[in-house]
Amino acid sequence: MSPEHIAYTEVERRFTRLATVNDALGILDWDSQTMMPAGAADGRTAQLATLRVLAHELLTDPWLADRLAAAEAEPELSVWQRANLREMRHAWVHANAVPSELVEASSRATSACEMIWRTARPANDFGALLPALTEVLDLQRAIGAAKAPALGCSPYEALLDAYEPGARAAALDPLFDSLAAFLPDFLPRVLERQAGLPAPRALGRHFPVEAQRALGERLMRVVGFDFNRGRLDISLHPFCGGATNDVRLTTRYDDSDFTVSLMGVLHETGHAVYEQGRPAAWLTQPVGAARGMAIHESQSLMIEMQAARSRPFLEFLAPLLRQTFGHDGPAWQADNLWRHYTRVEPGFIRVHADEVTYPAHVILRYRLERAMIAGDLAPADLPAAWNDGLRGLLGITPPDDRQGCLQDIHWPSGGWGYFPTYTLGAAIAAQLFEAACRADPGVLPGLGRGDFVPLVGWLRTHVHAKGSLLATNDLLTAATGRPLDAACYRRHLERRYLDGD
Amino acid sequence: MSPEHIAYTEVERRFTRLATVNDALGILDWDSQTMMPAGAADGRTAQLATLRVLAHELLTDPWLADRLAAAEAEPELSVWQRANLREMRHAWVHANAVPSELVEASSRATSACEMIWRTARPANDFGALLPALTEVLDLQRAIGAAKAPALGCSPYEALLDAYEPGARAAALDPLFDSLAAFLPDFLPRVLERQAGLPAPRALGRHFPVEAQRALGERLMRVVGFDFNRGRLDISLHPFCGGATNDVRLTTRYDDSDFTVSLMGVLHETGHAVYEQGRPAAWLTQPVGAARGMAIHESQSLMIEMQAARSRPFLEFLAPLLRQTFGHDGPAWQADNLWRHYTRVEPGFIRVHADEVTYPAHVILRYRLERAMIAGDLAPADLPAAWNDGLRGLLGITPPDDRQGCLQDIHWPSGGWGYFPTYTLGAAIAAQLFEAACRADPGVLPGLGRGDFVPLVGWLRTHVHAKGSLLATNDLLTAATGRPLDAACYRRHLERRYLDGD
Repeated sequence: MSPEHIAYTEVERRFTRLATVNDALGILDWDSQTMMPAGAADGRTAQLATLRVLAHELLTDPWLADRLAAAEAEPELSVWQRANLREMRHAWVHANAVPSELVEASSRATSACEMIWRTARPANDFGALLPALTEVLDLQRAIGAAKAPALGCSPYEALLDAYEPGARAAALDPLFDSLAAFLPDFLPRVLERQAGLPAPRALGRHFPVEAQRALGERLMRVVGFDFNRGRLDISLHPFCGGATNDVRLTTRYDDSDFTVSLMGVLHETGHAVYEQGRPAAWLTQPVGAARGMAIHESQSLMIEMQAARSRPFLEFLAPLLRQTFGHDGPAWQADNLWRHYTRVEPGFIRVHADEVTYPAHVILRYRLERAMIAGDLAPADLPAAWNDGLRGLLGITPPDDRQGCLQDIHWPSGGWGYFPTYTLGAAIAAQLFEAACRADPGVLPGLGRGDFVPLVGWLRTHVHAKGSLLATNDLLTAATGRPLDAACYRRHLERRYLDGD
Repeated sequence: MSPEHIAYTEVERRFTRLATVNDALGILDWDSQTMMPAGAADGRTAQLATLRVLAHELLTDPWLADRLAAAEAEPELSVWQRANLREMRHAWVHANAVPSELVEASSRATSACEMIWRTARPANDFGALLPALTEVLDLQRAIGAAKAPALGCSPYEALLDAYEPGARAAALDPLFDSLAAFLPDFLPRVLERQAGLPAPRALGRHFPVEAQRALGERLMRVVGFDFNRGRLDISLHPFCGGATNDVRLTTRYDDSDFTVSLMGVLHETGHAVYEQGRPAAWLTQPVGAARGMAIHESQSLMIEMQAARSRPFLEFLAPLLRQTFGHDGPAWQADNLWRHYTRVEPGFIRVHADEVTYPAHVILRYRLERAMIAGDLAPADLPAAWNDGLRGLLGITPPDDRQGCLQDIHWPSGGWGYFPTYTLGAAIAAQLFEAACRADPGVLPGLGRGDFVPLVGWLRTHVHAKGSLLATNDLLTAATGRPLDAACYRRHLERRYLDGD
């Protein structure tokens, strides 16, 4: 470090401390969903809130405002250092727009609401959730309103920007509009073609959890997950969390059906190998963080949707499944697995949705959360609006709130503005996969041998090791030759669901 | 709160925040010993160090010095509030005597040394531990030297004072001297008497871990552990940790011998019920914390040594063991269990030591750590000094360092000054148990029925619910009618090991 970078070095040290507190938060949050006894919930809520406040204070004390400005004025910084300062500034703007008391109130409210959701969901009791959800929403609206002027956008976009920096409605709406225009025509053609194929053969009704767990761990290794720096556990709502060099993913097992958990593990493994592949020299700095949730989701969908539901991978998987569960026969051939794993059927539950109807679930949530943040939809009216919305998009009505507006953890846990990143991620995954296959013809044949090195190696170079060096669209342009292009995603859907590839 | 207690209320709030950070540290520390993948060790070291620094800063910023003094000057505080201020001041003195950089350096050094110890111990490689251990010692000496003037005691006593507030060599030495004088005469008499009894019958060689775990959990419930506010897990070195209302204890299982793990679980359960019984209104305040490590250890030894090795409890345990492990016959009668669990045999490993020889292990460590802190013993000379010391106390020499100076986690993890609390605790346990049995003749018969309510109820009232209201000796005087009296402990040993009671 040259002597003129004194301020830069100081702010780097501050951000290392911040990353370390955030790592501690990641482990405590993982624990609360996997290990914590019920009676510890209030204490954990306080711990998470207190550490979030301490993290917030690290970003908001006047010392940092002064030193960050000084660092930005220092000459001859490297490209990574400049990008690091840009990301620091982005984090600073988000943190300093919101008063500490609001951050603490929101943290407490979301922790409490999440706990209530854990019992309200199985009990199908929206009324029990409503007061806590209303409190969470009010605080999210206050946060959005506080950030909007600082970011020069709407309150909803300000919330979205925390997950996907730079994302704005003006760019999202065309994507969602094109999908909303595409799907009503596409879905009936898919269902018509599917009706002409043999139905998937049943796979049996008993799959011991321990066998599922062992297979999941084996496939995680196949994809490239490093168990020396991570774990697999069980939680109600699967997630990928933990800390730097300690990436913890979860699933839930159903001993009458292995297919959902298996793809869930592969999905979270996509998130996990992204985290494990971040640039080693910048792990504690903002520029070394994952680019944003859209790219993050693209990595999970890359593994789950692009790779693991491809015909070559299912050829590799079929004998493994026969061996794991001791079954054989036509149901356990790759083609039948393909029919299972590409089955399209409009349904109520987002996390169980197929690749074709999934965007409809996201569009529904995007519209509802925008309306709630704008104050155009009261939480008390959410169940009816949800059911109306799903009927409009997919022609089906949830029989209860458990299969409707109670199904997701996102709103109770404060993840407003997060949903759009799922479909952004799906579109990015299609574009990156197309580019990877074009760059290396060995990618698809590799999947057929359980060899993910060609695919994940390309991703490591073009995505994982870039951290937050580039903005999302610049990353995509550097990796694929052009910015986000929804045509790749439509092409992928047509190829798989109309051509049967 | 009356209006004149503004400063008191402010410092209470600060100490609540501190307790919350310490709770987070408790969970992260538990995780590092039970769940964490190996590759996460460096990151966890940084997390623990950073949170400890943040905790230290909460105690050392000038605001607190000012407000704490103001609170101490406020009139008409309650007895609990006054005691709370006294405990705050004690914590403040400990924290403010040591510079932040020293706290951080020590935290990093102990985390790193502890990780090295995890591999050096099984590898019997003291040389691999030596550099890290030397660094830990140097930092402990610096901490002791920094605190000594503030506390008006020696550097070693300053370290001890962090675990057992108020403990001084002038009070410890008579206890250890009286035991050192008592044991050389007592031990041969015990061994002679034991030689005249039938040897314990062997209990078999296979005890499935899952059965041991289930039995351990059952006995934890019998003692009064609340699983809604705690867990039982596995770690290399058993401990009781976690957080407020989230008390997590660990054991390690040997499938060829259930006896060690079973008593280990009961020992940690004694610690745990103390933590779970702290005064509910003061859980986040210093006055609501456990009184000190000597009382803490008295509670674990109360359950393990006083209660669980008593003849009535073993009468209760015997049929449970027969049922759990599917064995029967004379080996599985209470009298044979009693002969197992009161077997005296000088050995190398402290945690496996019997009740009679255990004080010798503590005296050894007390002498060695005092010498190291005083600078009279270099860490490189520790293995030889250890072996000489054990030979002098028990007449046996460890065959290797794994069974010698590498066996305990305390020194690598920075727990210098902790060892004396084990024997202080044993003496206190004997005195409290005698008082409980005197106060309620139902205590011993209760143990025979697996009914711990009389014993634990008495402890809840006279020990657990007192928190840190009273100093250790005042607590003991209030509960038993007199200050620490080593005669109770000798009486207990004579009754059990000479009278066979």
